[in-house]
Amino acid sequence: FTSKLPDVGTSIFSVMTQLAQDHEAINLAQGFPDYDPPQPLLEALARHVLTPGHQQYAPMPGLPRLREAISQQTALRYGYTPDPATEITVTSGATEGLYAVMAAVVRPGDEVLLLEPAYDLYAPAVRLQGGVPVYVPLSAPDFRPDWDRVAAALSPRTRLVLINSPHNPTGAVLSADDLDTLAGLLRDTDTLLLSDEVYEHMVFDGAQHNSVSAYPELRARAFVLSSFGKTYHATGWKVGYCLAPPTLTAELRRVHQFITFSVSTPTQHALADVVPDAALYETLPAFYQQKRDLLRELLAPTGFELLPSGGGYFQVAGFGALAPGLDDRTFTRRLTQESGVAVVPLSAFYHDGHDAQLVRFCFAKTEETLRAAAARLTGLQ
Amino acid sequence: FTSKLPDVGTSIFSVMTQLAQDHEAINLAQGFPDYDPPQPLLEALARHVLTPGHQQYAPMPGLPRLREAISQQTALRYGYTPDPATEITVTSGATEGLYAVMAAVVRPGDEVLLLEPAYDLYAPAVRLQGGVPVYVPLSAPDFRPDWDRVAAALSPRTRLVLINSPHNPTGAVLSADDLDTLAGLLRDTDTLLLSDEVYEHMVFDGAQHNSVSAYPELRARAFVLSSFGKTYHATGWKVGYCLAPPTLTAELRRVHQFITFSVSTPTQHALADVVPDAALYETLPAFYQQKRDLLRELLAPTGFELLPSGGGYFQVAGFGALAPGLDDRTFTRRLTQESGVAVVPLSAFYHDGHDAQLVRFCFAKTEETLRAAAARLTGLQ
Ligand SMILES: CSCCC(=O)C(=O)O
Ligand SMILES: CSCCC(=O)C(=O)O
Repeated sequence: FTSKLPDVGTSIFSVMTQLAQDHEAINLAQGFPDYDPPQPLLEALARHVLTPGHQQYAPMPGLPRLREAISQQTALRYGYTPDPATEITVTSGATEGLYAVMAAVVRPGDEVLLLEPAYDLYAPAVRLQGGVPVYVPLSAPDFRPDWDRVAAALSPRTRLVLINSPHNPTGAVLSADDLDTLAGLLRDTDTLLLSDEVYEHMVFDGAQHNSVSAYPELRARAFVLSSFGKTYHATGWKVGYCLAPPTLTAELRRVHQFITFSVSTPTQHALADVVPDAALYETLPAFYQQKRDLLRELLAPTGFELLPSGGGYFQVAGFGALAPGLDDRTFTRRLTQESGVAVVPLSAFYHDGHDAQLVRFCFAKTEETLRAAAARLTGLQ
Repeated sequence: FTSKLPDVGTSIFSVMTQLAQDHEAINLAQGFPDYDPPQPLLEALARHVLTPGHQQYAPMPGLPRLREAISQQTALRYGYTPDPATEITVTSGATEGLYAVMAAVVRPGDEVLLLEPAYDLYAPAVRLQGGVPVYVPLSAPDFRPDWDRVAAALSPRTRLVLINSPHNPTGAVLSADDLDTLAGLLRDTDTLLLSDEVYEHMVFDGAQHNSVSAYPELRARAFVLSSFGKTYHATGWKVGYCLAPPTLTAELRRVHQFITFSVSTPTQHALADVVPDAALYETLPAFYQQKRDLLRELLAPTGFELLPSGGGYFQVAGFGALAPGLDDRTFTRRLTQESGVAVVPLSAFYHDGHDAQLVRFCFAKTEETLRAAAARLTGLQ
């Protein structure tokens, strides 16, 4: 039996979650909150589950009232009002959104530019279309794109450039200058843009999220992905969405209708009851910044070297001082087994397994969990 | 902009549902019940939505307790106990299951054998992988496969044969002889089998559903799809599953993890509370047979010619006597606009638009809905 992805194993997140369970380790590996969604949202979903007539197929592009709410929220946040009828598609999580974008626009032989480290599904989703990932490295400690290297990697075969801010795994955040530079690079090309903004509401230290939705020149060629799972602490609900201009949305829906067709109807109703919610978006940055700060404070005395984290769920740390010469996968396995804390080795985010003795901590956890993990990590040196 | 599916439009189900809404027509087009899931299942879901810790990612292959329940149910129904760890994968509806099977095993140039009329997503899902659909016609009135034609269409390039019983759109049901014949045809080949059994619990007139799961020789090379949406009147929940031997399941999960990753956690918990449910599976055939019988009784005086329907949600009918010479799309549009009843033209299930003056009625509707539709159809002649 010949596999289509012979070199791709089980996602690192599943592997580490399983290893954590096997060793009763605290799971700071897979990115999910260990707290629940806001109570009004839970109650809204329970209510819609018991509402007659809300349990059958939603319309393929998403429930109209949820798309309307997404449009209003985008207008509030980014001063741009996407048309619910032709520019918004609700997807089975941002994961399906991303896969569907690839299936919609990447043809065999097309190049897709990825900045590495990169979220683990980007490259396989490209390769399953017969596309060719082209990798441009991001460099520690701040993991900001080197736009000259991006420019050098662009070619007439570049179908799509993928950006991700706030960035998983590094927490790097793109600046307005970054987006302006990118706009300049793409001007006069046919290259499309895919902007993964699932952590859009978690940017720290008073900085703003620079959404592609706020840049008319970029959004005219872009798919922008977001995730209700991240925003509402409901990763298990699997609802995200994709904004794109009408011609791109039409292509996306052409394949979305055959990949999942539609998304849970009661869940879409519940989200439409709470979106938009300016108060939530205002409190989320501080909520997550506090968690980042706490994790950094707790890790400081452990011997891990802390890299900057400007947004999202994650903190990258070097373990070179703790385990000189050890590769990151071995270190991670030992940390899980011997110290009872699971993290993700950064080499999992590189196509060639590039290893710089770095690991990723998820701080989307309660204070209690973060403190318990840190207690297990003190005395490592 | 070059589309990857330039000739594919919006799914006929969305088109007809929209047309039905525009004209306040009764929607017997799209296949979904207009009644709700069983109350205990609704209450289970409401409960799990309010259960702390049930709102984050489920494991990628599905919640262990739901896979365990599916295994028990398969054992009860078909005398075969799939291993939850290696042979069962929960998917975002059978739609994602089907798409993921195609993405997992169909390589560019591979042929996939489809029996026509065929559900509208089969061919696009093949083509998006660079695969080549090979069509074998099923003939009215009973739409049973002509296995000699299937044998003639098989080639060393046939990667996959797709069967569907009970059949959408025709209601045809495969016999034990059909499956034995197919087993003989596939013996000594590397061709895989995809069996779409989403209507497995709705077979009429005392006949049995012949599941590929009950045929050891076939299931050793097969992906078998089922749908909780169909079984529990919850098409909007988007939960299905795929049974396959370990090597095939491993390939399926390799792509499933990048297409949707996982399925709604609270919804999987709720289903695990009610599956298996032998009483439900025993009552469903009679429940749907009564609907089929009622629709047939109501349509008999209208001038539609009723073809046999042995299972599933659908009844095919000829309108040649009502509108001689009219093509099925025009007839369907007029029926929606002028009589206020939406159905699906059978040509939508053929790659070449083959038109035999047939339409599909969905009878997964309350008695009230079916009677109201029939009232609008009397006096057509
Ligand atoms: C889909 S499981 C992985 C969750 C996540 O986004 C991460 O851990 O990076
Ligand atoms: C996914 S919408 C179509 C529902 C259905 O299975 C049908 O109408 O045939």
